[in-house]
Amino acid sequence: MRAQIDPFQAIGISRLAHKLKGEGRSIIHMEFGQPSTGAPRAAIATAHRVLDSDGLGYWESPALRARIARHYADHYGVAVEPEQIIITCGASPALVLALTSAFGAGDRVALARPGYVAYRNTLKALHLVPVEIPCGEESRYQITAAHIAALDPAPAGVIIASPANPTGTIIPPEDMAAIAAVCAERDIRIVSDEIYHGLSYVGRARSILEFNPDALVINSFSKYFSMVGWRLGWLLCPPDLTDRCRAFVGNLFLTAPSLSQHAGLTAMDCRDELEGHVEVYRANRALLLEALPKLGLRKIAPPDGAFYIYADVGHLTGDSLAFCEELLRDTGVATAPGVDFDPVEGRHFVRFSFAVSTAEVEEALRRITPWFSARTAVGASAPVK
Amino acid sequence: MRAQIDPFQAIGISRLAHKLKGEGRSIIHMEFGQPSTGAPRAAIATAHRVLDSDGLGYWESPALRARIARHYADHYGVAVEPEQIIITCGASPALVLALTSAFGAGDRVALARPGYVAYRNTLKALHLVPVEIPCGEESRYQITAAHIAALDPAPAGVIIASPANPTGTIIPPEDMAAIAAVCAERDIRIVSDEIYHGLSYVGRARSILEFNPDALVINSFSKYFSMVGWRLGWLLCPPDLTDRCRAFVGNLFLTAPSLSQHAGLTAMDCRDELEGHVEVYRANRALLLEALPKLGLRKIAPPDGAFYIYADVGHLTGDSLAFCEELLRDTGVATAPGVDFDPVEGRHFVRFSFAVSTAEVEEALRRITPWFSARTAVGASAPVK
Repeated sequence: MRAQIDPFQAIGISRLAHKLKGEGRSIIHMEFGQPSTGAPRAAIATAHRVLDSDGLGYWESPALRARIARHYADHYGVAVEPEQIIITCGASPALVLALTSAFGAGDRVALARPGYVAYRNTLKALHLVPVEIPCGEESRYQITAAHIAALDPAPAGVIIASPANPTGTIIPPEDMAAIAAVCAERDIRIVSDEIYHGLSYVGRARSILEFNPDALVINSFSKYFSMVGWRLGWLLCPPDLTDRCRAFVGNLFLTAPSLSQHAGLTAMDCRDELEGHVEVYRANRALLLEALPKLGLRKIAPPDGAFYIYADVGHLTGDSLAFCEELLRDTGVATAPGVDFDPVEGRHFVRFSFAVSTAEVEEALRRITPWFSARTAVGASAPVK
Repeated sequence: MRAQIDPFQAIGISRLAHKLKGEGRSIIHMEFGQPSTGAPRAAIATAHRVLDSDGLGYWESPALRARIARHYADHYGVAVEPEQIIITCGASPALVLALTSAFGAGDRVALARPGYVAYRNTLKALHLVPVEIPCGEESRYQITAAHIAALDPAPAGVIIASPANPTGTIIPPEDMAAIAAVCAERDIRIVSDEIYHGLSYVGRARSILEFNPDALVINSFSKYFSMVGWRLGWLLCPPDLTDRCRAFVGNLFLTAPSLSQHAGLTAMDCRDELEGHVEVYRANRALLLEALPKLGLRKIAPPDGAFYIYADVGHLTGDSLAFCEELLRDTGVATAPGVDFDPVEGRHFVRFSFAVSTAEVEEALRRITPWFSARTAVGASAPVK
């Protein structure tokens, strides 16, 4: 049977946003998790230099592998061999590589709901079985050791994400240790999506490798390093799977863009410029956290990291897609409907991405304030949740 | 059960070649299908310009989609909508996308043996079942309509490649029409790898779309366009699968490198420079076809296209991997062992890639001539086939 997967509704919202823009409307794009900044200046300079001096063949940069391995020592105190790093065309193929290498057809893989829509859909596309765990406020929308312990039979794997998309919540160290322990005990392989690392506002996010050396870790240059369209990421393989993952990548994907690998190596030493972006996100987050509750959005997942606010709009709608469309048409502010992240509860949620400029966040708030005020006044008499 | 896939032995040969080079040896790389030329000059100029003017976010170039669609009209006389083109990070993810979109777990997919090793391994990694058809001289190492008609039950799909890797053979138009007909009749979905199109020495290669509008077509900028490390390719979806393939790519892969898309659009209008590369390959092919039979390599698959010579060395060895290693150590000429393409008959074959300069082909022939002469004299008394 062919896999059935759901369309990504935020793409429809984005398409509408571009259509409205084409009609002359002013649009603020808060629907995707994409920094509005480009690559670090020094990385672009490297790209110019390499364009004129390198034939750009199939290539996996040994220097980039070594630099990423050093990053794990520097930031997490974890020893990693460069050979364990597989450079990929972004985090997406790294996830495909992790799932095909670690699991067999029909294997069950647990994950939190809400979560990044591609986890569920990629599992299905690869003929694996997603086991979605409904996670709410009580666990900060994150999967816990207790959830995993309660699964019977034990799944073959679990996907965790900290900071998470769409909520931005970070799994506290003691909870991550407990997840690592229960997975080790039950022989469950962990796939940890650490793509939002570097973007945290409540202390650093921990890597699962600090607690479980058998996990597969996914990361990318698209978020912290602000190099989205360069399509550069990596899979960190545990020692027992490294040969297997290398055989898979040589067949499924070959190498990542050579120019991006050169530029990415430079970007890893552009901390000052990149931390400047984080300060912008921090200011944007503070603005939203101050303003949104005043608009009646009082149930917001704790945005510990990433650049998202996942807000409950259940007092205003039971159809988040229609809600996002209306918000966009009326105000020019594009957001992502919760149904993309949670097909059940997501109809009551909206995700704002604040990876834009602070001026854009301010303008967005100016536009949506009267819109929400009018709704909240009406909404009180027409609850739909 | 987890998929078991074979390592790619040419990678080991290449690693040995680089090790020998590090020890000061002169190496000629004929082991991989990689042009030794870089991207067209105008494409590099475009990349410089875009690097300074574009933020390089998630993006699928509408202009590139339209230009590729026009290419099908210009070169094959086939009408294709731009919406049917999905831009990918090279042909490899395009194949993953085609196979996951078109088939379900356990589906059987037929393919020729010998063939590109990643077909078999990617099928297995995606929990599909490769049905390998042994193909020899009698069918020019290509799968035929008769092979497909004889399969019982009918497979869900068939992968064809023309020009093929490792042989370079092209499927004649009448044979392609027959394959299209039997697949239409038996409801078998065709996946056609057309990555070597543009590189043919016996008249143009036909696209399967000229015969079967329901096929999925894979292509890339890595061969004719000489843009290997830019990681740019495409999947052309038939109308009934376009929405499904778009949903899959949005989950499994997202977009292709933005800079490469800009540069690739320019490259499509650099025919003069690119046809110059083809003339080099044509000269290299002629040199090899003249020289190799004199070295005793008389059984060579007809290299109609691509940049490969697949030669039977069964009179000299029954272990093509050991043979390639010895040839490399003795002469510095790296080649690919046939076992990568055919785990059965491939132990008698070696693949030479002639995507190098003509001077390198000449130097390679100078080095291997005495080596083969010595072997052939000895080999006659020690046949291993």
